[in-house]
Amino acid sequence: MPPVVLINPFEVPEGKDEAFLAEWEAAKAFMERQPGYITTRLHRSLAPNARFRFINVAEWETVEHFQTALQHPEFVTLRDATPFAHFPAIYEVVRT
Amino acid sequence: MPPVVLINPFEVPEGKDEAFLAEWEAAKAFMERQPGYITTRLHRSLAPNARFRFINVAEWETVEHFQTALQHPEFVTLRDATPFAHFPAIYEVVRT
Repeated sequence: MPPVVLINPFEVPEGKDEAFLAEWEAAKAFMERQPGYITTRLHRSLAPNARFRFINVAEWETVEHFQTALQHPEFVTLRDATPFAHFPAIYEVVRT
Repeated sequence: MPPVVLINPFEVPEGKDEAFLAEWEAAKAFMERQPGYITTRLHRSLAPNARFRFINVAEWETVEHFQTALQHPEFVTLRDATPFAHFPAIYEVVRT
């Protein structure tokens, strides 16, 4: 089975990059310890005012691994604390 | 210079996948003929009702190559015809 792809666009206002990155680092430090985590790439827009300033693209072995990590109390605490709107979903590659 | 990354999330209502894919194929057929195009991966959400049903992730040699392609009259015609909201921006990878 190919890995599944988590893509998570974040709305981060201008001037809030450092606050966002600190949160992202904490979330990544948790996620990379969870079963099924493979890799992640955090993208930042070249334009400071893009609709989605940051977009995270991560690979997980299965949807179930990712869902289990999402529901872990340690992660729920991190997620509930963020002020940044975000739209995570799991994807598969359908065209190249 | 590492390539730049175009990420383009699309809002596609349930039942419109085939209409979207036909448009995307036409846009890709144009883009892959342009100078500076490297590669693209089209992602579809596993959930049919995700906020962004499709997200395209492409690599271009430089921002200028991509902007030139965007402004080509042939592409402008394709873009103006699409009913699907989308939010393209150019990104660089800032964390892995």
